[in-house]
Amino acid sequence: MLMTDLIAKKRDGGELSTEEIRFVINDYVHGKIADYQMSAMCMAILFRGMTDRETLDLTMAMVHSGDVVDLSSIKGVKADKHSTGGVGDKTSLILCPMVAACGLRVAKMSGRGLGHTGGTLDKLESFTGYNISIGEKRFIDNVNRIGLSLIGQTADIVPADKKLYALRDVTGTVPSIPLIASSIMSKKLASGADIIVLDVKCGNGAFMKNEKQAWELARSLTRIGKLAGKKCAAVITDMNQPLGRAVGNALEVKEAISVLQGETKGDLLELCLTLGGCMLIGADITEEMEDAQKMLQEAIDSGAALDKLAQLVSAQDGDAQAVYDTSRLPLAPVQLEVPSKISGYLSHIECEKVGLISMHLGGGRATKEDKIDLSVGLVLNKKVGDHVESGESLGTIHAQTMESAQEAAQLLRDCCTFSNAPVEPPKLIKDIIV
Amino acid sequence: MLMTDLIAKKRDGGELSTEEIRFVINDYVHGKIADYQMSAMCMAILFRGMTDRETLDLTMAMVHSGDVVDLSSIKGVKADKHSTGGVGDKTSLILCPMVAACGLRVAKMSGRGLGHTGGTLDKLESFTGYNISIGEKRFIDNVNRIGLSLIGQTADIVPADKKLYALRDVTGTVPSIPLIASSIMSKKLASGADIIVLDVKCGNGAFMKNEKQAWELARSLTRIGKLAGKKCAAVITDMNQPLGRAVGNALEVKEAISVLQGETKGDLLELCLTLGGCMLIGADITEEMEDAQKMLQEAIDSGAALDKLAQLVSAQDGDAQAVYDTSRLPLAPVQLEVPSKISGYLSHIECEKVGLISMHLGGGRATKEDKIDLSVGLVLNKKVGDHVESGESLGTIHAQTMESAQEAAQLLRDCCTFSNAPVEPPKLIKDIIV
Repeated sequence: MLMTDLIAKKRDGGELSTEEIRFVINDYVHGKIADYQMSAMCMAILFRGMTDRETLDLTMAMVHSGDVVDLSSIKGVKADKHSTGGVGDKTSLILCPMVAACGLRVAKMSGRGLGHTGGTLDKLESFTGYNISIGEKRFIDNVNRIGLSLIGQTADIVPADKKLYALRDVTGTVPSIPLIASSIMSKKLASGADIIVLDVKCGNGAFMKNEKQAWELARSLTRIGKLAGKKCAAVITDMNQPLGRAVGNALEVKEAISVLQGETKGDLLELCLTLGGCMLIGADITEEMEDAQKMLQEAIDSGAALDKLAQLVSAQDGDAQAVYDTSRLPLAPVQLEVPSKISGYLSHIECEKVGLISMHLGGGRATKEDKIDLSVGLVLNKKVGDHVESGESLGTIHAQTMESAQEAAQLLRDCCTFSNAPVEPPKLIKDIIV
Repeated sequence: MLMTDLIAKKRDGGELSTEEIRFVINDYVHGKIADYQMSAMCMAILFRGMTDRETLDLTMAMVHSGDVVDLSSIKGVKADKHSTGGVGDKTSLILCPMVAACGLRVAKMSGRGLGHTGGTLDKLESFTGYNISIGEKRFIDNVNRIGLSLIGQTADIVPADKKLYALRDVTGTVPSIPLIASSIMSKKLASGADIIVLDVKCGNGAFMKNEKQAWELARSLTRIGKLAGKKCAAVITDMNQPLGRAVGNALEVKEAISVLQGETKGDLLELCLTLGGCMLIGADITEEMEDAQKMLQEAIDSGAALDKLAQLVSAQDGDAQAVYDTSRLPLAPVQLEVPSKISGYLSHIECEKVGLISMHLGGGRATKEDKIDLSVGLVLNKKVGDHVESGESLGTIHAQTMESAQEAAQLLRDCCTFSNAPVEPPKLIKDIIV
């Protein structure tokens, strides 16, 4: 089998066989296929696409390039969730305790990731002492005992994706649905859960800018999941403004706690109820979304979901008291309100740029070596559709210095567009693909 | 300027600016752009194409990646010819002396090339002593004195093409019209001629399998040539059977001499008269193809063209007597007739496979290091459309051993398909693009 021939086959619109795809991934991971051939193949795939069968084969070949996490010693149904990434996305902090309180098992290993804020693990480290390296035995034991654990990756999961993604990133071959889908699903499938729920973000703050692309990706992700024998659903959600109001690590933890306390409603709660509903339905706990969401709301109203978060933090050596007293979380020295200079209806937020404000304040990571400041970020006071009076606050900046806070305040103002006529708030849940 | 952004621009159907194309070629040649980015760019170009302006810019950027041959010290109009490559193509051996006899100047530097037979230089080495390394001064002097010289490359012409072609060859990115056209034309433009005539082969023995592709390439080549300020024409010619009858180095020299002697007519002569006609018209020696071809035929009939070949060989230290006495050319020890086992009209010849017979006999070069056997090859006795009686010879194999000759004979039989009904011989000249 010659890589040159396989590139030509895909280039000319052919369908690669299971064996051919395994050869490509295996020999690429082992350095027998050169980067320059792989990048040409990726570009050919980008233009020609892949059938569902090819995409599944690619995903499985990538899964088998490394370790597969064995969760068989965990009793009960294991659920996992993935988001394609957006600004202010603290969903896991709410969703995982909530579904664990409803009887599902959440055993999540994550990388730290790059972005406007840290990942879920960084956010959890806002609880003093939270240990992401408790070892596999405690990880499994904790899930069996309290229903959930979130730790850093111990296994060498999907090395093919690490190598391939680094190549795609510099060769213009990222935006290909089969390549994105296999990258995401290989990592999810290698992580061992029974139920996989996907949050496909769509809008100016997401990678998928329009609904058609998001729909195609969601469809591809769920097809792969099902063909691989998993329960799988995807929710397409709006990312034309930050999710919820907080952007920044400890700030997001506070907002998540507020949702779990039943104090904060709105888009963030709606998303968690929808994703959680898909999980409960996937686990056959109930058949109807309405019933599922009632169970999840009950877990909030009873305090069970909040207690589950405290159990998680406690079981991983963190300061669980902070769950009930958020003044124990990191707090930046400077808080600065951002009064609007314009009156009108907030019609548009440059979502990605809002994320960059958090990044500039020190809340995100541009390279793996960067250290994150957990305390900084911003909290929006207004969202799209809200009326704003001149002088009224658009949000609060949390910063280390007044200088950086003032810079961020100006950036936040620049992110907002106003209209004289009333503006309809964007619909959060655009579609659910089961 | 970032290569990743330029790949994405082309991937999304954008037009690269002159500056961007220069950046790509310059930084690639200097190792600042990685192979894996260049191969992704080539695949994007393959799918998205290039405008005439982009293709010209690419060609010129490649020309300027190395030396440009300066022919300004040669008096008169310099003509050059390029063939996209076919089986039995000994056109240059006839065309160059013929047009030189009509007053044009031919100053040709060639590489040795790979293929079923050697290149023109290898063929000329069938004349004992022929020196392809006479140095630039003698090269120029000879052209000024006798009108033509053919030598090996002394200059470092288009290093970008060497590097890029090697990459394209292993990344499935060869069959792209703008990439092929810029590869060919960069070398022709760097070679310094005023008139460039292109022989675009089309058929089962050529790289371009169908007339549409060949037409597109011919159009692109001539557009580049004209935009670069050259007189340029392309002739699309049939390559569904070998050109003429001989395939093999010394055998092709003999056939070329026979055409120059006026003894052999047919497709080979027709092609030389057409290509030569385009050159004479390009040089404003005449306006009409009919007049031009009469002049060229007169150069044959008078013996001037044959004498010109002898002058060339003599001026480069070769055995010019062999031009008039072909028994002095290399001759293989074994000649084997290949009687047909079938009666009928010869309807199809697997042209490329006929080329491979010559290669297997030792007449071609698979890698640059291979040594060529100038004496071996084959001479067809029948061409498509001819009637063949069972037992009548399809051709003659020239080989080093009886064993290899017998093997080649069987291969030649396998290349031929017969029909009971009469078959129309294929038309050689399919189109002329000026």
